[in-house]
Formats: sequence, C-alpha cells, structure tokens
Amino acid sequence: MRAAVLYGAGDVRVEDRPDPKIDQPTDVVVRVVASCVCGSDLWPYASMPAGGTGRPMGHEFLGIVEELGTDVTGLAAGDLVVAPFTYSDNTCDYCAKGLHISCRNGGRYGFDGVDGGQGEAIRVPHASGTLVRLPVSADSALLPSLLALSDVMTTGHHGAVTAGVGHGDTVLVVGDGAVGLCAVIAAKRLGAERVILAGRHQARTDLGRGFGATDVVAERGEEGIARIRELTGGVNKVIEAVGTRQTLDTALGAVLDGGTISRLGVPQYEEGPLGPAVFMRNLTLTGGASPARAYIEQLLPDVLDGAIAPGRVFDQTFSLDRTPDAYQAMADRQVLKALIRP
Amino acid sequence: MRAAVLYGAGDVRVEDRPDPKIDQPTDVVVRVVASCVCGSDLWPYASMPAGGTGRPMGHEFLGIVEELGTDVTGLAAGDLVVAPFTYSDNTCDYCAKGLHISCRNGGRYGFDGVDGGQGEAIRVPHASGTLVRLPVSADSALLPSLLALSDVMTTGHHGAVTAGVGHGDTVLVVGDGAVGLCAVIAAKRLGAERVILAGRHQARTDLGRGFGATDVVAERGEEGIARIRELTGGVNKVIEAVGTRQTLDTALGAVLDGGTISRLGVPQYEEGPLGPAVFMRNLTLTGGASPARAYIEQLLPDVLDGAIAPGRVFDQTFSLDRTPDAYQAMADRQVLKALIRP
Repeated sequence: MRAAVLYGAGDVRVEDRPDPKIDQPTDVVVRVVASCVCGSDLWPYASMPAGGTGRPMGHEFLGIVEELGTDVTGLAAGDLVVAPFTYSDNTCDYCAKGLHISCRNGGRYGFDGVDGGQGEAIRVPHASGTLVRLPVSADSALLPSLLALSDVMTTGHHGAVTAGVGHGDTVLVVGDGAVGLCAVIAAKRLGAERVILAGRHQARTDLGRGFGATDVVAERGEEGIARIRELTGGVNKVIEAVGTRQTLDTALGAVLDGGTISRLGVPQYEEGPLGPAVFMRNLTLTGGASPARAYIEQLLPDVLDGAIAPGRVFDQTFSLDRTPDAYQAMADRQVLKALIRP
Repeated sequence: MRAAVLYGAGDVRVEDRPDPKIDQPTDVVVRVVASCVCGSDLWPYASMPAGGTGRPMGHEFLGIVEELGTDVTGLAAGDLVVAPFTYSDNTCDYCAKGLHISCRNGGRYGFDGVDGGQGEAIRVPHASGTLVRLPVSADSALLPSLLALSDVMTTGHHGAVTAGVGHGDTVLVVGDGAVGLCAVIAAKRLGAERVILAGRHQARTDLGRGFGATDVVAERGEEGIARIRELTGGVNKVIEAVGTRQTLDTALGAVLDGGTISRLGVPQYEEGPLGPAVFMRNLTLTGGASPARAYIEQLLPDVLDGAIAPGRVFDQTFSLDRTPDAYQAMADRQVLKALIRP
C-alpha cells in the first residue's frame, strides 16, 4: 500500500509500505476513505531531524472495516468507522472515567509498529474500544464533518468542556486554526453567548464568525490583550488553541482573576508562568490532549443532523500522492486544513 | 502603640508606632486581642534586604472594635471581630463572585499606610466589607480557632474547594505546616474518605492524624511519590500547601492523569512545568491565594459548635514584645504556629 512517511523537516514522502495485517485478535484493518493533516503534524514537519527510518504520519482518519481479529466485537466488515486520534481499549480505569487519551493500553498511530492514518490502509489496535461506526455511506456529504470528530472537533469540545463553558458565558478562543475554530463551535454549542476569536487570518476568522464567533480580535500581544479587555472587561474562560508562549501570554493577559485557561495546543515550551502573580490571581490552568473517543458519540448526532458542520475547516482536498503538497500548503498557511483522499 | 516591624532578614523589632486613627469614613480601628505569625511571614523574614523604613507585619488578627468611621455599618464599638488576611469592600464584582482576594478596592495589611496585625491596634479599611463579628466574648476558649479563620483554616478550605474535594474522595495534602493541617480538616469536612498527609515532622503529622489524615508519608522526593502511589495507586486530588518546586514535583508525581493540583503555598518559583508532559496528562493546576472573607461565615458555625478545631495548630503563645522570638522559633521549626497576645 501507499502511505505518507516523514523523514525529517520538510521531507514527507508517499511510498510503498507493507499492507497492514491483523497482528492481535483485537485488531481491525481499515481501508482509509479520508484522512487529513493535523496542525500538530506541522511541528515535526518543521523540526524533525533528518535520518532514521522515518515516521508514518497521520492520526485522523475514517474508513471501511476490511478485516477483523477474532476478539473484535461490535464491528463488521464493510462498516464505515471513524477513529479518534489515539487508540484505546475503552475498558481501563482511565477510559471508564472518559480519559481515553491516558488509556492503560492505548497508543498513538505512527508509533510502536502501528501505521499512520495518511495511507491507504491501517491496522487499528483495540479496535472495539477505538472505532465508532458511522450510520452513513462512504460517499456521504457529511464525511468531512465526521472526519473532524477524529480530532479537531472533539479537541475543540474538550477545550469548552474543561474551561467550564456554559449558558450565557463570554469565552475567548485564542487561535484561528482548525482547533480554535472548532472550539468556537463547541463554545456556542454549550451555550456561550459571546465568543471572542483572536486570530488574524481573515478567511479563517470569517469562518469563525460563521461558526458563531461574535467578535474577532486581529491584534496580537499587548495590543490584542488591550483590545479584548476593551471589548469585554476581561473574560472568565479562555480556550488557548495554539500552544506557544505568546498565545499563553495572551490568555493570561485577557483572563480575569479567578478565571480558567484551557490549553488545547500542544505546548511548544516546557516551563510556563506559575509564580506568585498567577497564584495571587487564582487562575486555573486546565485542558490538555483531548480524550476524543469519549466525545465522538456525544457530538455525532449534532453532525448527522447538521446542527454543527466542523468539516467546513477543510478548505482543500489532496490525493494521497500529493500529501507532501498538503503539508507545505498548511505550513505556508495557504491551506487551513488539508483533507487527504487515498 | 507597640507593633512588630520587619527591617530585614532575621530582624523583627517591636517598637512604638503612632496610634492608628480613622482616616477614611469606611475605616474601623480595632484593638487587637490576638494575632499570629504566618508561614508566609517567614519568606521575607528569611530574605528581605536590610535598610529602609521597615514593614509592619502580620495579617491575621482578631480584636475589639474601638472606633468607627461615619460610613461603617453593621459593626459597633465593643464588637469582637475577626479579619480575613486582606481587606475588601465586599461589594465589587470580584467580591460578588466570592473572590475577595482580588477586590477592586482591597489591599494588604502592612502596605499603603495600613498597619500590620502584629501590634496593639490597627486601622482596617473597608471595615464593613472586611470584618466579621464573632458571637463570643474576648476570653472565649474558641479564640485560637476563630483566629485561624483569618487565614490558615480559610486557606486550607480554599484548597479543598478548588481541588473539588467531595464525598468519598482520596486526597493528598502535601505539607504539614498549619495550612496543610487545616487542608486536612477541610478535606475531611467536605467528605474525603482518605487523606494522605505528606510531611515529616511527627508532632505535626500526629496533629494531622488528629484532624483526620488516614495516612502519613514521611518520605520526600521520588521515594515519597513511590510511597503515595503504593498506598493509593495515585490520587485525583492534591492540595499543595508549601510552595516550593520540590513539593510541586511531589504533587505532579503523585497525581493521576486527569487530576487536579490546588496550590495554596505562595510559589517560591516564577516558572513551573507546563510542557507536553503535563499537557498530555490533562492535569489541572488551580488554587491560589484564598478569598478568606468569602469563607469565614461558612466555616464559623463549625468552629462555634466544635465540629472543627483549627486553633490546635497554635502550639505556643508569645507576648507581643516577644514577637521576634516567635519568628525565630517558627523559622527554626521549634514552633508550628505562634499566637501573639498584645
């Protein structure tokens, strides 16, 4: 089969790899119908040292069940399924409390002998606990929005949930990437009355307005903080959907004492401000990697009935062979989120 | 009047100062009946540069209302009152949401022309919003526990509240100082079934057991984390009541993914771990300086009926003139918490 492998910064190759096979009785092999490139894929694409055997890429995909291990239940060949961006057994203590990202038997696609999602097929470990059946056909117009449940929409939702967004709230979303835009959807869905979107790419912030953002702040740094405070007087709930120190500082500057900052962007820093200033302000830092599996079934009905359409974040489709172009286009900010069709 | 002033590390002096007078119509002058030395007083006692005019010390006190400004309501001369460790108007937006520590018109004793509590008398700004009347006489045996509402008990309670402690929980309290011990009381009071107290001073951890700690871990660092994990399998809720990087690391090592760490000790660091490791684990960092005023009335009935007795943290009483000895005894860990009687 053909699949995308990252060999170093700027070096994604689509190449022949062995066809995935059932290895464990809990495995399923999925024929990929659609996958995509994640904002987090761009970090190794920007910085991975060259050399080595390469890393299969992609952790967001949906496809058709092709082959099943003997212990797999609840799935059948021919089912259209969506995968959360990590696999999990859905039975351990962490899964039982909805924290599938910390599953005792879970793992990441592209590591430990598991392929990535940017390919023609993939072996999914703990398939019964991981994959969610989709009650539509593979040519459904809803496919992009269903694919968004794999990561960006469930991640945006995690931000809104952990920030404690509720009816009538004012929420700041920092970042107009696909996750930030999905966080806008999620905040509105949970009842936010006012959603301030901090971002400076107009096509993206326009989409954010379409998703329900009531205000857009294009300024950055101190100027951005001043603008948010001018608009709102400060906010109690912030979803930080980028992961840089600058965006964290924007969140810290805009939040009111006693407020909550939920972080969704993988931090590009090891240490952050936790000193007396943050302490005296009673700020809460929460969020983290989304337990996507816990949220897919919650959000699925809203996707199916069109109440939310997170698939609108996909603004360009690439064939699998053009995956390298998809990475470069996203890195160049020419494309918001690239959908890949094998 | 006589009052304690800190002139530099190790240099507390009790000296004559001008008698406090009503300055604003919202002021009250309180004749101090009892005050105390806070663990946080020991930080400047250890490190304040010498020189300058000195800093009046003490932010925990109770006493008798002596003189009232013309705008003061709800208080009368002769009332016995307890002061939270910062003053606040109890009317601003922050106070309205119970975050008195961030009061728009609030401030700290010992700063901005306001005396400290370690003295014979003190002018309290925004007295109607700050002081809470106590329905006992000044010679009540409950005085130490009522004084504890000024800071340590309301701070311990803040830790339990922000950590989300509820019925049946297992809670780790890091630190056997007065705040940590009061956090044990608070966690039990909110329904915790199991409270692990990390501390190595046996007299203090024994008191912690008396307050309801079910287990004591005397080991520190990696050994302490291993012991806590052995006892509990890891905990979901941690109250960090010291404020050093080492105790934060203990909290981070003992907490389960998805868990909450509430910080009560003023951080003795500016930056802390907020990188991918914390992010992937979905840890929540919360807590901060307690809005003591918000909690005094909630906890007062339990003190009055003896359900909780946080005053047991006071293990030695000093006359005001011996305040320097009280500081040194606490710095030397000879005394857990010193009560000062003018």
